[in-house]
Amino acid sequence: MEKYIKYMKEALKEAKKAELIDEVPIGCVIVKDGKIIARGHNQRETNQSPIGHAEIIAINKASKKLNSWRLEGCDIYVTLEPCIMCSGAIIQSRINKVYYGASDPKGGALGSSINVLEANNINHHPEVISGVLKEECSSIITSYFKAKRQSK
Amino acid sequence: MEKYIKYMKEALKEAKKAELIDEVPIGCVIVKDGKIIARGHNQRETNQSPIGHAEIIAINKASKKLNSWRLEGCDIYVTLEPCIMCSGAIIQSRINKVYYGASDPKGGALGSSINVLEANNINHHPEVISGVLKEECSSIITSYFKAKRQSK
Repeated sequence: MEKYIKYMKEALKEAKKAELIDEVPIGCVIVKDGKIIARGHNQRETNQSPIGHAEIIAINKASKKLNSWRLEGCDIYVTLEPCIMCSGAIIQSRINKVYYGASDPKGGALGSSINVLEANNINHHPEVISGVLKEECSSIITSYFKAKRQSK
Repeated sequence: MEKYIKYMKEALKEAKKAELIDEVPIGCVIVKDGKIIARGHNQRETNQSPIGHAEIIAINKASKKLNSWRLEGCDIYVTLEPCIMCSGAIIQSRINKVYYGASDPKGGALGSSINVLEANNINHHPEVISGVLKEECSSIITSYFKAKRQSK
């Protein structure tokens, strides 16, 4: 199995953790030297935090683990295309590569709603690989909202 | 004195706190119903955190104080034009108005390096007022870097 598939499956496990606590199921992992060093799942409602996205939680954990704000040499695997805030955090942290699953036309900031990497004068441009396990990453969200609507 | 001048002066006080701990002097306050409910200053190096910007710290505090990820009815006053990450956090938190001091051609995301509010399909567009006490907000940063260079 390709490595990026393996790590996206781990990100999907995180998304499922979000679903279990009735959060929109989005998850991610951060990988350095072949090891997962941080995990995160969406906890916006649980923590009542506007910054409680999977990526911010994982980036925060990874920087604590490495005791550095520079996450150079780290890759992030996230089930949904990051929003403006999370794409900005990825740039700020100097993450090397972003692998994401499903695109997000309603706020994805790596090409769908806007491409923040087109900003002038920013000092870091992570490589972006999209569409990794996109069916699974997309359907977990679709199913979540479908179930929500039916329960109403 | 105009209210927005008063609050920007408070944001400048926060920027000075950052300078005292040898951080790039950027500060902010969040105001609701005429009261400052949260303050933040840049602590990226101190906390070794890529998300340790003034705005993220203040937004986090404000949402804890209000016990809500929705900072509706809140305004943010920040000495420097917010970066992509912080502009995204402002959008996520539904902050009403953004008052900023100095523009940032090297990463300002509300018009200088990019304008993230031009993203398609985002569900919140804060009002932006720029140039509030821009000389003071700019010179505190310029002086900081000048002193840094001279001490080398």
